[in-house]
Amino acid sequence: MADHDEIEALVRRLAGEAKAAARVLAAATTPRKNAVLQRAAVALAEAPGDAVLEANAKDLAYAEEAGLSAALIDRLRLDRGRLNGVAAQVREIASLPDPVGSVSAERTLANGLQVRRVRAPLGLIGIIYESRPNVTADAAGLCIKSGNAVLLRGGKEAFHSNQAIAGIVGDALEAEGLPRAAATLLPTTDRRATQVMIQLAGVVDLIIPRGGEGLIRFVTENAKVPVIQHYKGVCHLYVAASAKLDMAEAIAVNAKTQRPSACNAVETILVDAAVADAFLPRLDAALEKVEIRGDAGVCERVPRARPASEADWDTEYLDDVVSVRVVDGLDAALDHVAKHGSLHTEAIVTEDDAEAARWVREVDASLVLVNASTRFNDGHQLGLGAEMGISTTKLHAYGPMGLEELCTLKWVAYGEGQIRT
Amino acid sequence: MADHDEIEALVRRLAGEAKAAARVLAAATTPRKNAVLQRAAVALAEAPGDAVLEANAKDLAYAEEAGLSAALIDRLRLDRGRLNGVAAQVREIASLPDPVGSVSAERTLANGLQVRRVRAPLGLIGIIYESRPNVTADAAGLCIKSGNAVLLRGGKEAFHSNQAIAGIVGDALEAEGLPRAAATLLPTTDRRATQVMIQLAGVVDLIIPRGGEGLIRFVTENAKVPVIQHYKGVCHLYVAASAKLDMAEAIAVNAKTQRPSACNAVETILVDAAVADAFLPRLDAALEKVEIRGDAGVCERVPRARPASEADWDTEYLDDVVSVRVVDGLDAALDHVAKHGSLHTEAIVTEDDAEAARWVREVDASLVLVNASTRFNDGHQLGLGAEMGISTTKLHAYGPMGLEELCTLKWVAYGEGQIRT
Repeated sequence: MADHDEIEALVRRLAGEAKAAARVLAAATTPRKNAVLQRAAVALAEAPGDAVLEANAKDLAYAEEAGLSAALIDRLRLDRGRLNGVAAQVREIASLPDPVGSVSAERTLANGLQVRRVRAPLGLIGIIYESRPNVTADAAGLCIKSGNAVLLRGGKEAFHSNQAIAGIVGDALEAEGLPRAAATLLPTTDRRATQVMIQLAGVVDLIIPRGGEGLIRFVTENAKVPVIQHYKGVCHLYVAASAKLDMAEAIAVNAKTQRPSACNAVETILVDAAVADAFLPRLDAALEKVEIRGDAGVCERVPRARPASEADWDTEYLDDVVSVRVVDGLDAALDHVAKHGSLHTEAIVTEDDAEAARWVREVDASLVLVNASTRFNDGHQLGLGAEMGISTTKLHAYGPMGLEELCTLKWVAYGEGQIRT
Repeated sequence: MADHDEIEALVRRLAGEAKAAARVLAAATTPRKNAVLQRAAVALAEAPGDAVLEANAKDLAYAEEAGLSAALIDRLRLDRGRLNGVAAQVREIASLPDPVGSVSAERTLANGLQVRRVRAPLGLIGIIYESRPNVTADAAGLCIKSGNAVLLRGGKEAFHSNQAIAGIVGDALEAEGLPRAAATLLPTTDRRATQVMIQLAGVVDLIIPRGGEGLIRFVTENAKVPVIQHYKGVCHLYVAASAKLDMAEAIAVNAKTQRPSACNAVETILVDAAVADAFLPRLDAALEKVEIRGDAGVCERVPRARPASEADWDTEYLDDVVSVRVVDGLDAALDHVAKHGSLHTEAIVTEDDAEAARWVREVDASLVLVNASTRFNDGHQLGLGAEMGISTTKLHAYGPMGLEELCTLKWVAYGEGQIRT
């Protein structure tokens, strides 16, 4: 791609076209939007002429040449099975209720005015993402279903795969009489393109960065458009004095080991001093394959534990490692979470209702749990269906971001000539 | 105030203290928060030793010396009657339901997990405002009631008045055993203080600029903290072909003349060509004290109308001026609103249900009305009680921003040991 001015002009033009398409998509009926998604799913699963797999092969060849890690190359790789998975995800989005026009509240005022709060598309949503090409289909599907146009900026490693998938989505839109521009993939992965799109206030209505901390930080610091962040999860489990220790053990094992790489996996376990002697040896045995980094109270009781450094309390391991700390009661646990939590997911195990009530009220996190695993912070688990990620931004959407969270709530009033007196 | 570094250090310190106080306020009970507001209201109404009026006299003297306009000086002025009004507003906030802990949705999942979405304070809210000192009490009251700490940055013209009012609020917090820092007025009006506070991501959770377009633009362009804008209202009234013309006339008069300086006053009236001959002469007579700027179709029919310039269609007059245009049907009206609307308030007068349904669905505005005056876009009118303003930001709060909109919705789950399988 040529110079900065050309890239800026290109991004501005494409964003303008996508914004114009947003008005058309916002007015599209549910059956039409679902038909677009079904068409796209069929095309992805059948991938005529293996167009997507051929494009993916180009990306893989480039990735190998560039010496990318095996893990990154695996995230990039598509095969028939994975493409079927992508298609299934798009079909699931089609099967979910249309949020547009759904009413969240209504009342009739004393003057007879009927007032409602109704979900409406946000407009044009910008998604900035990294290597996984499935995000192209997934993000476009969620935006189309919620009546939003989408401006996609994928990673350079998946450039050809993304183009092929976006082409399929565009064809599906066109086949249903909707503008292709409603799902626009930027044809450049130049960093300048990102810089331009995150500053288009009034054109782009929301930016969602999906990727690592560096990307999210860059977008947040430079955006003039509202951003919803899906930051890291330094999730805690607090085993209170009254906890059933069988339950606490089962939840700890599930939260830490069921999928350590997930953002809702637990990273720190806080154990009340009153149950430290009874619980820590059990935890030691139950998490035998997990490295334990503990404070003094833990290291005394768990010989294999390594001393935790101050940095451990702020670390999202995403791995078979857990930090464990002995705390003196609920207030100390709340203080620890207030200082080290990441607004993601925080669980308590307790049989004390008053303690549970304080935990629920005083912990600031997108999901606060009592006697259940942190792994439930997920759109499917919580009953939203497909999601755009787990927002750790308190404004607008806190927690799993499903179709409803991709909408605004506008006020609608029906009258019979009411005027203000 | 000294140099930039000192101001930065001061703002950072005060914001940090306010953020710490936010945790305490978030856990405060409803009766305690109401007691703070009642105490503040009593003190404002009684203003011991006339402290507020004395402070206000200093501001007025400075304003006169500085040659401020009579209108600005009037906005700045407090007297016993106005102070009673401020106190009444704070009492009204005390009387409203506490949003904290209220449940917006709940369900029991198949695995027995009880899931709720519960309102919780956002944390620390920054308010940047201009001359009116009543905002100090009003904004602090709304934040305290919704469990949020507030960092206030008032205008320099009202410096002493704001200090006196903030002192009363601080005393009331302290008297009820809550930290003064929960409502902190910055002791400087240096522009640098604003620059620092709008960049304190992770400390300040939300910035609301309350003031003119220049202030809002500056904050939006420079903030790293989420901003909710209360922008201008270029509000439209579309008189459709099927409109009852008596109703249209009454609504036009109310929307334009009941309070022309309000952001929800109408600025442009779109008249369907089918009723232009019948309606425009009536509008001419009904708005006899209002200057009319029209397109060719209007100027033909209303001899006194001046030709509208292209800029007129984007102008918020806030005055006895209206722009009027003849349009060919609903699509032309929708196009005009999409191009010139400001996401604020848009009304149609029609007897055609299908047309009303399209208007409601396709117009992007915080309040869309059918057969009612634009003047209803107001927290009191829509039943929210006191409000922080009318948001034209689609994220989080679109329209009147009441106590519920000053909260986030966090997920809460109660289990009996559920783990993810």
